[in-house]
Amino acid sequence: MKMLIIATLATVAPAPKYVTPTDIVGKAPASAWRAIPAEDLLVVDLKSGARVVIQLAPGFAPVHVANIRTLARAKWWDGAAIYRVQDNYVVQWGHNEGLKLPAGIVTKPPAEYDRAIAELKVTPFPYRDSYAPRAGFADGWPVAVQAGRVNLTHCYGYVGVGRNLSPDTGTGGELYAVIGQAPRQLDRVIAVVGRVISGIEAMSSLPRGTEALGFYKERSSEVPIASARLAADMPVAERPTYEVIDTGSATFAAYVRKRANRRDDFYIRPAGGVELCNVPVPVRLAK
Amino acid sequence: MKMLIIATLATVAPAPKYVTPTDIVGKAPASAWRAIPAEDLLVVDLKSGARVVIQLAPGFAPVHVANIRTLARAKWWDGAAIYRVQDNYVVQWGHNEGLKLPAGIVTKPPAEYDRAIAELKVTPFPYRDSYAPRAGFADGWPVAVQAGRVNLTHCYGYVGVGRNLSPDTGTGGELYAVIGQAPRQLDRVIAVVGRVISGIEAMSSLPRGTEALGFYKERSSEVPIASARLAADMPVAERPTYEVIDTGSATFAAYVRKRANRRDDFYIRPAGGVELCNVPVPVRLAK
Repeated sequence: MKMLIIATLATVAPAPKYVTPTDIVGKAPASAWRAIPAEDLLVVDLKSGARVVIQLAPGFAPVHVANIRTLARAKWWDGAAIYRVQDNYVVQWGHNEGLKLPAGIVTKPPAEYDRAIAELKVTPFPYRDSYAPRAGFADGWPVAVQAGRVNLTHCYGYVGVGRNLSPDTGTGGELYAVIGQAPRQLDRVIAVVGRVISGIEAMSSLPRGTEALGFYKERSSEVPIASARLAADMPVAERPTYEVIDTGSATFAAYVRKRANRRDDFYIRPAGGVELCNVPVPVRLAK
Repeated sequence: MKMLIIATLATVAPAPKYVTPTDIVGKAPASAWRAIPAEDLLVVDLKSGARVVIQLAPGFAPVHVANIRTLARAKWWDGAAIYRVQDNYVVQWGHNEGLKLPAGIVTKPPAEYDRAIAELKVTPFPYRDSYAPRAGFADGWPVAVQAGRVNLTHCYGYVGVGRNLSPDTGTGGELYAVIGQAPRQLDRVIAVVGRVISGIEAMSSLPRGTEALGFYKERSSEVPIASARLAADMPVAERPTYEVIDTGSATFAAYVRKRANRRDDFYIRPAGGVELCNVPVPVRLAK
């Protein structure tokens, strides 16, 4: 008796009368997909062999993302490590004990926590958000909207820039990825610079650090990083290439509604709503 | 240069002028705490030596919880295993290939997905919820309120009963714990029977299963369970004892407000709101 339990999108072989969110994305026309520029892909290879791919968000944090590109090109993270894993919160990496920054780094970036709404076309999110009066999607990213400003949201897998007390905003050398319930209290307090689009499980399944805030007690527990490169700097044949759904498309609108209203022989009662961070923006490997 | 980054409650040594959520809970009067009955604590010891403690919710799913107590007393999970770990979703355990249920099990429990609001005193949650028109806390648990009914919510660490297609509701033998963004679409679709109050990291840090839905491909990957016992059935000297905050108390109300309005030298902009599942109900070891 193999049990098929608490089904996700793909399970329980729904009768044809039911449409799943995955069905909707699977039938998206080619025009609903956008190539992710190779300059926006940070490929982090752990020494273990696991690969984590991060999509950068230059439209939201241009100076921090420029720093990250400079750091990648200087091979600054080669030999860095994951040194903090806090359950239901974040995985963090870099050079915790400090390492000289390469030339070209902006050492005091501006507070790229949000941007003016007039600069962006925001597709409204049709459900309630607990943190902002309005939410939405812009350029393939989930956003919250308030006081005429738009900010990226701290959803699962999203990547932010570690910093010390304000007005320090961090350089981008110390990064973290969310591995638990969306810590949206960090929105507009930290620069969000991207999201993990592949390999998050290589981070989320790491042993938790036992020191305060999930720092590893022993250096020997740290998880070494072999290299971090922009896809644009890799040989073309070796580059991973990805596409992201157009969040302004009809496909995406239908997907959002279906995420909020699942109904099949397992989902007996559609929720009628959904949390912004429970609507992951579909990304796929390009063919 | 040891960086203190993206602080949580306890970090960054706030100046005395700032009060944190942890400060508020730390100063709660003894009258704000409630002992958790030993009958409501399921102590799961993994063969690795790690311990996971689950608080059961008999007020919300009495028949399923009675089954779970019967299964623990029959030592039904001794020799069971964690056989599914799906990233950003759930860890699931039991006897996936089936094992005869002990005498006294209700094999077809009712759909204990919600209960009438008239039976419960609900303290309103003062912020927006994405899934229900209203949310709140009742008897120490987060709840959503709709159509005159109240349901437990699928927050991080919350435990539900695996089942097949409805009208099956599961017996309680196959259980799962949430290890990612709250899958609230499962609310009112599955029986929530409790929450992990200690040791969730022993589950959330396990390797992810590579089969569909995060099932382990090989039986040899499964994580064996040594035993699962009710604290009430353990020798008194060995029982773990816990207390939970009174969610109707002034302390808890202040804690909720502070979770939504963190402000210190790190949290430069209070959010002004918070998601229900980002307000974990404080639990502590009893002295």
